[in-house]
Amino acid sequence: LSSPGNLLAQRVSDVGERALIERIRSRVPPPPAGLLIGIGDDAAVAAPDRGALQVLTTDALVEGIHFDRRFSSPADIGYKALAVNVSDVASMGGTPRLALLSLMLPQEMALADLDALLDGLLEMAAECGVALAGGNITRSPGPLVIDVTATGSVKPRKVLTRGGGRAGDALYVTGQIGAAAAGLAWLRASSGTGRAGSRWSPVERPEDPDLAACVARHCRPAPRVRIGALLGRNRAASACMDLSDGLADAVTQMAAAGGTGATLDGSALPVHPGAATWFSAAGTDPVVAALAGGDDYELLFAVSRRARGRLRAVARESRGVQITCIGELTAEPTVAISRGGRVEPLPAGFTHF
Amino acid sequence: LSSPGNLLAQRVSDVGERALIERIRSRVPPPPAGLLIGIGDDAAVAAPDRGALQVLTTDALVEGIHFDRRFSSPADIGYKALAVNVSDVASMGGTPRLALLSLMLPQEMALADLDALLDGLLEMAAECGVALAGGNITRSPGPLVIDVTATGSVKPRKVLTRGGGRAGDALYVTGQIGAAAAGLAWLRASSGTGRAGSRWSPVERPEDPDLAACVARHCRPAPRVRIGALLGRNRAASACMDLSDGLADAVTQMAAAGGTGATLDGSALPVHPGAATWFSAAGTDPVVAALAGGDDYELLFAVSRRARGRLRAVARESRGVQITCIGELTAEPTVAISRGGRVEPLPAGFTHF
Repeated sequence: LSSPGNLLAQRVSDVGERALIERIRSRVPPPPAGLLIGIGDDAAVAAPDRGALQVLTTDALVEGIHFDRRFSSPADIGYKALAVNVSDVASMGGTPRLALLSLMLPQEMALADLDALLDGLLEMAAECGVALAGGNITRSPGPLVIDVTATGSVKPRKVLTRGGGRAGDALYVTGQIGAAAAGLAWLRASSGTGRAGSRWSPVERPEDPDLAACVARHCRPAPRVRIGALLGRNRAASACMDLSDGLADAVTQMAAAGGTGATLDGSALPVHPGAATWFSAAGTDPVVAALAGGDDYELLFAVSRRARGRLRAVARESRGVQITCIGELTAEPTVAISRGGRVEPLPAGFTHF
Repeated sequence: LSSPGNLLAQRVSDVGERALIERIRSRVPPPPAGLLIGIGDDAAVAAPDRGALQVLTTDALVEGIHFDRRFSSPADIGYKALAVNVSDVASMGGTPRLALLSLMLPQEMALADLDALLDGLLEMAAECGVALAGGNITRSPGPLVIDVTATGSVKPRKVLTRGGGRAGDALYVTGQIGAAAAGLAWLRASSGTGRAGSRWSPVERPEDPDLAACVARHCRPAPRVRIGALLGRNRAASACMDLSDGLADAVTQMAAAGGTGATLDGSALPVHPGAATWFSAAGTDPVVAALAGGDDYELLFAVSRRARGRLRAVARESRGVQITCIGELTAEPTVAISRGGRVEPLPAGFTHF
């Protein structure tokens, strides 16, 4: 890559595990008061928030499955690895608090790339008020893996589950859908016939601002931390989950968990304008593509008739994130979408196997 | 492997992610009262133990780095993946409570092997009173990875850290050392010139019972869950850590963290008899090999003069696990071992990079 001795040439295999941990610790801000023991001991020790339950979740980004070095920078990967976890905390109505970072590093990874990965993760951590409490580093004989565990706090009786929805509850989604799928499709199309490699490529972005926003959403999702916590605190939602595997999948899961069906209004879906443009140009139905596309870390939630006032209170504090009514839960146990007067079954979501 | 339709022939890629999660959930015992939401939602939700702090740790087993399919069965891997994490909880004086399981599975992995892996993990979970609260499953384009996060509880002012030791404190170790390293060395020697492959081999064991115990210790470590919690609760230890990277490394870390040195008494070290036999026959100094060998999940801890009575109380409740005084922390900031009247520097521990 470069001449020996310079930072780009230094690999993670050039320094010991202890030095890597020290390197990480030196970049992490001072711990908050509740984190009594952070990075460097056998385990972290933290004081739970008074009167709160604890939310716990884990999610991994695996090279070749969840990211490609041609499309995302190391900082993007670090950012996203924490973002997808705090999204799960938010979807339970929780406020994220701590993270553990488990890294599996190829030996030839440059130290500068590890630094960038950590800086991306710490950027997300600062945005959502999370402290990095500890973790683990090991060598990987294959892909780079970033596995994060996040914890959060939620008050009793404010927990949002997938299964709390009832027939007649209205369904809402935050933000816009389909952007991450369109962004990834653009990146794949633009990379031509190239194959994933070990080199981090400079990330080119499309000139069209809507498409550029889609690519940005794929690389750096925006977990709805504030809205999730507000929905829980105000008891505005009867059920909630995030769209990690796409809206169609989420609606199907929520209906199954609550023993209901669901009907979406196709004309109401907030399809991202960049996704609409991209999928239309590709000859794909944008609504179908946006429903099936994964990696939108928006929230799907259900609101009972009597909670609609509480939802308005949440919407007033949403800081510009749109909240759109997209349908309702039904007694009839089928999951469908109405479009132009016709009712169709929902397309399937993204699955990992 | 076998005819289609039979369980051995079914791969994880034959079923969806949802079916895999359901398969895991069906094997997990009913959740304890404090685990309000377990496997199946976006995140787990648990009630913290009243008046307790929370311990959090994560550690991964990566194929090709931490295990070899020729030496360990899937059940061994599952067992060990949780064991190494509860060992970290115990070393903080904590009582383990919950675990999250993050799996990265090669597509060709047999479902029967996944079942066995989970059964091994649940066996360890039952032994140490841990509930599997959730996790994540994804595909791996390379190695099988089992990444576990464990939580535990510890009362304020009962937390054991690495850095609490003072000059004059006596050093103790639980159990025996060197067994896991000798077991791994035996497995490597017995496998001849074979290379790690994708097939789980039937695990052969040595005929010699001491060596068989070493191999068993490599495959299934015995985390000192009970003694760790007792040392914390009784305030018997001033510092504590586990021997994941070997005794020499642990003593060095503990001395550095507390701003002391340390001297070990070479004649006092409880070297496992199988390790003594194996390393002697291989022409290696058994004490040096046992000091440097990783994967002993014993506890190293320091005890001040005035806490020795409290240590006797712990020892009475240790259920047959031996506790051996092996030296002391010193004001002189060097880490050494005395053997036959000579004082030598400690050999270095195991490092991952």
